[in-house]
Amino acid sequence: MIVDGATDITTPALVVDLGVLEHNLSTMATAVAERGAALRPHAKTHKCLPIARRQLAHGAAGLSVATVAEAETFAEGGIADLFIAYPVWADPERGHRLQALAGRTRLSIGADSVEGAAALGRALSGTAEVGVLVEIDCGHHRSGVAPRAAVDVARAVAKSGLALTGIFTFPGHSYMPGAATEAARDEAAALSEAAELLESAGFEVRITSGGSTPTARQTRPGVNELRPGVYAFNDAQQVALGTCRIEEVALVALGTVVSAPAPDRFILDTGSKILGADRPEWVSGHGLLPDFPGIRVSSLSEHHAVVNVPRGFDTPVPVVGERVRVIPNHVCNAVNLVDQLVVCSDGQTVDRWSVTARGANT
Amino acid sequence: MIVDGATDITTPALVVDLGVLEHNLSTMATAVAERGAALRPHAKTHKCLPIARRQLAHGAAGLSVATVAEAETFAEGGIADLFIAYPVWADPERGHRLQALAGRTRLSIGADSVEGAAALGRALSGTAEVGVLVEIDCGHHRSGVAPRAAVDVARAVAKSGLALTGIFTFPGHSYMPGAATEAARDEAAALSEAAELLESAGFEVRITSGGSTPTARQTRPGVNELRPGVYAFNDAQQVALGTCRIEEVALVALGTVVSAPAPDRFILDTGSKILGADRPEWVSGHGLLPDFPGIRVSSLSEHHAVVNVPRGFDTPVPVVGERVRVIPNHVCNAVNLVDQLVVCSDGQTVDRWSVTARGANT
Repeated sequence: MIVDGATDITTPALVVDLGVLEHNLSTMATAVAERGAALRPHAKTHKCLPIARRQLAHGAAGLSVATVAEAETFAEGGIADLFIAYPVWADPERGHRLQALAGRTRLSIGADSVEGAAALGRALSGTAEVGVLVEIDCGHHRSGVAPRAAVDVARAVAKSGLALTGIFTFPGHSYMPGAATEAARDEAAALSEAAELLESAGFEVRITSGGSTPTARQTRPGVNELRPGVYAFNDAQQVALGTCRIEEVALVALGTVVSAPAPDRFILDTGSKILGADRPEWVSGHGLLPDFPGIRVSSLSEHHAVVNVPRGFDTPVPVVGERVRVIPNHVCNAVNLVDQLVVCSDGQTVDRWSVTARGANT
Repeated sequence: MIVDGATDITTPALVVDLGVLEHNLSTMATAVAERGAALRPHAKTHKCLPIARRQLAHGAAGLSVATVAEAETFAEGGIADLFIAYPVWADPERGHRLQALAGRTRLSIGADSVEGAAALGRALSGTAEVGVLVEIDCGHHRSGVAPRAAVDVARAVAKSGLALTGIFTFPGHSYMPGAATEAARDEAAALSEAAELLESAGFEVRITSGGSTPTARQTRPGVNELRPGVYAFNDAQQVALGTCRIEEVALVALGTVVSAPAPDRFILDTGSKILGADRPEWVSGHGLLPDFPGIRVSSLSEHHAVVNVPRGFDTPVPVVGERVRVIPNHVCNAVNLVDQLVVCSDGQTVDRWSVTARGANT
């Protein structure tokens, strides 16, 4: 992680440690390759072209994105293979954009309903190169159909004139302490079941895509592509889940102590407008202070991170004007709050990267 | 609130109903004027010049902002009186920016420590027109000093060559059902106590500034300026607090049903990257669906708002491709996620407003 100092940075700011980032990109690329799967990192985490290019340099097969607007940003940046891992609703406006996209990048899109597949078909008729992957629910119960319903969606894809290229799932129920192993098992089981049913119905299932940072290293047979995103930076959620060590967190919010009105309380300028407001029940606090082990952000408002110092804490606490690093709970939402990431290497600011796809929600 | 339809809007989007906005601006202006206080709306809610100008047209004395960067944006937009209601840490870089700001707008700044006041003095020495207000803690226990400590900070302000113009507080403990009346009482008591102590020590306390949408209509003697912010739009938190009726919510996220994988579940594209992830314990759900009374967003990921339909719900639920309105829990963080607000009147899109101060955190 970055050393402190960095007085050329105005706080609050999100700061990336280049060495840790490279370590994270490299170890995940190796782990996934060793398991014989393709890596298609989810770019919604970083929304940033320099990181996308590094992921491809580490052997990624392409990128995953969540929205048409993200796909547009990365296609414009020259990324040649994009999968919108989302059940896109192709209304006429989005349909035109998808058609334009299909002309400039190799494009795949998710679908999880007969209606959604039909709308994609209307939007993309005559664009034979676009692949469609049916989304399967493996236990997270968000979007995605049960494996037994995959054939209906696949038939709608075929009827709409598009090419079914595979299936995908997101084992989001891995986001709970101790849940990753079972979620990885569910992921493989659901994808295998859906693939078998589809093949029995005459479909070829080339891609079986799973994902998530907590499960990616536990890939099982039946999953031939992985879409982790957070691993590039890691965050306090991943630390709490045991997915990474605190030294493997590549992004922190750098803040300043703006107030210390009581001996057991200080306030940083890293509020929810820089850290994001995510806090699942199994994460304590609103951000970790890596330089003050055991201390977390106690409460968060838009521009205040209140830190209550536990009784008996024996390290000196920072004073007004000092700079403090905070690890966000959920890095994807933190990155989406800034226009730029400050890039540090060996404690020096070496670059600033545009978060080009920030706010690209549509 | 906006009528649905609006097919020219690509989802997800934040949509403002102009009529409801005007109602909210007008009723708050009247309520505060009737209590004999000045209104200085907090612009961190909307970050938007057209709304700032409307607030001034309704008689606001100036605007409150949270950061130097927000002050810069509104000063550039021609707003002539700005109060940075925050204990600003004036490091050299921020100090230069404060000096530049003081040259182009009437500027006031918060301070809540001897060190903070001294840093402001170093940054602004010779800029006599800048006013400083000491922040008082009235029970929220965030930043701000206890009333008895106000004199120390005021002396540091005077010593640093700046003009003490008043005191301010934020009764944030009003954000709890049933707490507003007592919080408004605490606010008046703390400001009155601090003002008395300061006056006994020879300081003139011209401004006694309180705030918050839940308490603004309960202003008490001893508070001569108010800084509510959320009231311009309102949100699901204010509905839960009973501060406003659902018809007084002026901003919604417009989403599309992208998936309906089970009869009792549908998924909207209004995830945490458009609604924000705030959810205090006393708010159930991650957003209200005003057109489906009793239904809330059950869980939220970045691009998915999962709605579990309660058993026995007897209104037809929306199908894939339909558009649905969602009221965010905390509108300030939602607005900060977009570059533009879509403005509707009588169900028609009439304008788009830039969220000019989006991301202005420094």
